[in-house]
Parts: sequence; structure tokens; C-alpha cells
Amino acid sequence: MVLYFIGLGLGDEKDITVRGLEAVKGCRKVVLERYTSVLGVDKEKLEAFYGRPIIYADRETVESEAESIYESAATEDVAFLVVGDPFCATTHTDLMMRAHKLGIKVEVVHNASVMGAAASCGLQLYNFGHTVSLCLWDKEMDWTPSSFYEKVLYNRKGGMHTLCLLDIKVKEPDFAEMAKGRVRYLPPRFMTIAQAVEQLLEVETERKAGAYTKDTMAVGLARLGQPSQLIVSGTLDELITVDFGAPLHSLVIAGETHPIEEEVLAMYAITADTPRAAPPSEQTQHDESGRDGEQ
Amino acid sequence: MVLYFIGLGLGDEKDITVRGLEAVKGCRKVVLERYTSVLGVDKEKLEAFYGRPIIYADRETVESEAESIYESAATEDVAFLVVGDPFCATTHTDLMMRAHKLGIKVEVVHNASVMGAAASCGLQLYNFGHTVSLCLWDKEMDWTPSSFYEKVLYNRKGGMHTLCLLDIKVKEPDFAEMAKGRVRYLPPRFMTIAQAVEQLLEVETERKAGAYTKDTMAVGLARLGQPSQLIVSGTLDELITVDFGAPLHSLVIAGETHPIEEEVLAMYAITADTPRAAPPSEQTQHDESGRDGEQ
Repeated sequence: MVLYFIGLGLGDEKDITVRGLEAVKGCRKVVLERYTSVLGVDKEKLEAFYGRPIIYADRETVESEAESIYESAATEDVAFLVVGDPFCATTHTDLMMRAHKLGIKVEVVHNASVMGAAASCGLQLYNFGHTVSLCLWDKEMDWTPSSFYEKVLYNRKGGMHTLCLLDIKVKEPDFAEMAKGRVRYLPPRFMTIAQAVEQLLEVETERKAGAYTKDTMAVGLARLGQPSQLIVSGTLDELITVDFGAPLHSLVIAGETHPIEEEVLAMYAITADTPRAAPPSEQTQHDESGRDGEQ
Repeated sequence: MVLYFIGLGLGDEKDITVRGLEAVKGCRKVVLERYTSVLGVDKEKLEAFYGRPIIYADRETVESEAESIYESAATEDVAFLVVGDPFCATTHTDLMMRAHKLGIKVEVVHNASVMGAAASCGLQLYNFGHTVSLCLWDKEMDWTPSSFYEKVLYNRKGGMHTLCLLDIKVKEPDFAEMAKGRVRYLPPRFMTIAQAVEQLLEVETERKAGAYTKDTMAVGLARLGQPSQLIVSGTLDELITVDFGAPLHSLVIAGETHPIEEEVLAMYAITADTPRAAPPSEQTQHDESGRDGEQ
């Protein structure tokens, strides 16, 4: 039997490939991983399109109970669905390798991921350096990781662009409730571009190595590959004023740019029609705006 | 009307997305760009699958006669098909922008590209730096570009992996024939991994900046995403002895590696079953082995 790792792409149910769809339709067990990213479509719509029930896999299922996924592939074809491409996250590589070691046949169906589609912003993919992840800080808990800074600095010194992936908190335990013996999860939270820019500028103020300034060109990407996709370019200081709407958001910090890149950036520049917002410290965060947010 | 830019992914006709297939079926004019990459499937098979005739676009059509593509989108829906993702190559970005300026509605259908699927080799995508292109050298004409070297050096100093895209020569004019008044094209040529490694080592011998050595770990990727895909890891010196077979080939030079990455590299290491070949200077080049080679 086969354990398929199938990329779903970025948008809705029709972003699966024809090969991927045929594989899903041939599997009785279909598992959807949905904590490293979020697809812009409801589970019910996916199930109707596939003609198959879907089992959600959260971080716990994938990282601790992985056997339940790959062991059943010994007796039946199993489809493990991943938003984007199956190789987006280390977790999936690990899962594939464990299945491989058990002698389970693995097939991969590639698809678009944010790491390729980010080139929509006009900055050429071959000129991107290290990708960095920005985490939602918790200043009360003194949790303000900033290890991204050195990587952005190195990329920028080498003239490279930097893709910043913004944090997703899905199915996080509510410890206050758990202390009372109740299993509760916090509502999903998605980092906004404005939050990311605030964080970047705060770290620059501390480290002062000149990785970037508030005048550095960047591009905000929201709901990439979906019909409501929003791409806006501007300085970091300008992007903080844009309301990018519902998740997911990503940010690209430009390195050295070439004339064609500059032309595309100009096409995406802020205009009078660009939705604007108050800075993130004054605004309501997009904590609960994920369409896929029900737990 | 709409000008669709549709990514075809890496392998065969079923690697198109469901959204992409629906768009193609709705277009009377379907153009396939095929000089920046090559799909592993015949035109006839694609036409049968789409139920549409396909017009090939070579470098000339896309770069000099682009109007013929986007102007017809003023009166009818046009599908412009691109192997991989539409944003793989600068040319497509430029074409999109020109269409946009003429007020033609553009829609993009993303797909997997080699730049994302290269992560199949086990080296994590977020840790890749600058992508480099290696050209087929012509020593007789003193054409031995090596500008990739500085980029690989910078990537490696920063611990990053480097994806090397290997040259494709499709529909190159045969000047000797043209001088006789005959329009002839040279057979397509595709750079092999062995040729790439020879070139890399030759440039290191000249520059001596220690970007890599013959003992640097790398991974060769052939026919990525296709059923006959071959992934082999080893030192540069080892990879030169592997026969990767038909095109397309790519090479990833590893930077710093983490335990999971090392585990995957070990899984792809050369074994007794790995097809072996004589060094490229002694072997016949894979010049005419492209399935899609007829001009």
C-alpha cells in the first residue's frame, strides 16, 4: 500500500493537482495536517470535493502519534494532505523518513508553497536568502525571540531578499482552564504584517547592526494564491499602516533590486485605495479571523 | 477576457492543478513556453488531456513577439502555460507586467517548481541561499562564465545550501548552416550533474577562496517529481561518477546541516545499486536524450 504526501497548494479545494486528486479519491483514510499552515477552505467543502471524510491532524497527532498515520498505510492507501508543498516543514520530512524506514511505500505529490509563490511580489526567487520565522511575542512571559535578526542581516549584506514567515498559533492549550481540570484551547491566532514590522523595528533598535531601517523596501503578502490575495509594497514604516485583512500574512524584506523587480514593486505600491489601519498597538489583532478557526 | 499564467508543475500532464485544468479547457488559445524548462510529457499527450491544440512558444516568441500572446487576450481567454510555477523566470514576470499595463486581466495559477521541490533532497528550503545558474561552457569560444562562484561562497559562509540550476539549450541556431542560407537549429542540449561538478571544481581550482572542495556534500536531482526521479547524495567527487540518466538535472551544494537533514542525506547516499558512469570528459553527453527534443 502507499502513503501519499499530497501538497494542496495555497488557496482552495481546486488547487490540488489532478494527480493528487486521483490519489485522494483512491484512499479510504485521508488526513489533513493543519497546524503548520491553514488552507482557505472549509473542511466540509474539501470533503464534498474529494468524496472522502477528512481527519484533522494537529501538532500532537503528527509529532507524537505519527504511527497512527503511517502504520495504517501498511494495510490501506493513506493520503496525508499538507497545505502548500509536502516539504514545506521539517515535520513532514521526518514523517516520510520514518515511514520509509518501516518499508512503507511513500509517494509525494508536489504543489505550490508560500516559499515559491512569494515570488508573486516581483522579487525574483533565485535572489532570496535564508527564510526566517517570526514568532508572536509574549512580553509578559519575557518570550521575545529574535534569532531571525542575524539571518536577515546576512541576507541583506549579500544583497538577498528575505522571506519572513509569520507565526500561527492553532490549538494552543489554555493552561488557566487546564489548571481547573478542563481541556480548553485558546482561539487561533495569526501574526499580522504590522505586528511583524513592529517586531523587526524593535529588534533593530536594540541590536543596531543596520540589518534594515524603517525606510527599507518590503512587500506584504496576504492570502497568497487566493482570490482575495493582497500584495502591497512599501517601506517598513509604510507597511505598518496597511490593513492586510484576514490571515495568512507573509512579509518579504527586499535586498538589492534590479530594474524589473523595481517595476513590479512600483506596481504594488501603496495607493489611495489601499486599505489602511491604525498601528497594531491600537488595533484589534486578527486573532479570530481565520475562517478555519473553529476548534 | 483573461490572460492566465498557469504553472504545470514538474512531471506530466496530471501535475496541473484542477483550477489550472479548468482554465485551460475554457481557453481557445493555449501557448506553452518551453525554453526555460522542459516538461516530461509529449505535446500530443498534453493536447489530448486538455482537448485543446497547443502552440509552442520559444525564446523568440516570448521575448520579441510577446504582443501576439497578450494582445489576443483582449478578445479571447488565453492560457500561457509554464513548466513549474509562472514566477520561475524573470521573463514571465515581465510578460505579466506588460499585459497588466495594457489593462488585460491577468490570473496566476501557481504550481510546484524545481525551486521548491528541490527540498525533496532532504535539505530544508528555509536554509537555502542564492540560487545559481551554471552554463554549458564553450572553451573554444572562451565562454566559461563563473559568476556563480561568489554566490556559492557567500551562501556557504553563511551556512546556507545552494541550488544550482543547470543549463538548457533548446532551439539554438546553427550558425554554420545559417551562413549557407539554411535555417537550422542545433539539437537540444542539457547540462548533466557530472558536467556541473567538473565546472565547479575547475572554478575552485582557479579562484581558491574555499567555497567548497571535492569533499563537500551535495545532492544530485534528476527528473524531479517524475516517476523516474533519481536523488543521490554524496561528495562532489562521488557525484561525478553517478549516471543520472535523462534530463533535467539539478544540483544542491549543502551548507551547514542539521541532524534530520543528515539522516535524509544518508538515505539518499550512493549504494551498490546506484547507476555509475565514467567521468564526463570520457562519456557521451546527454545532448539528445530529451524526450521533448524534436524541433
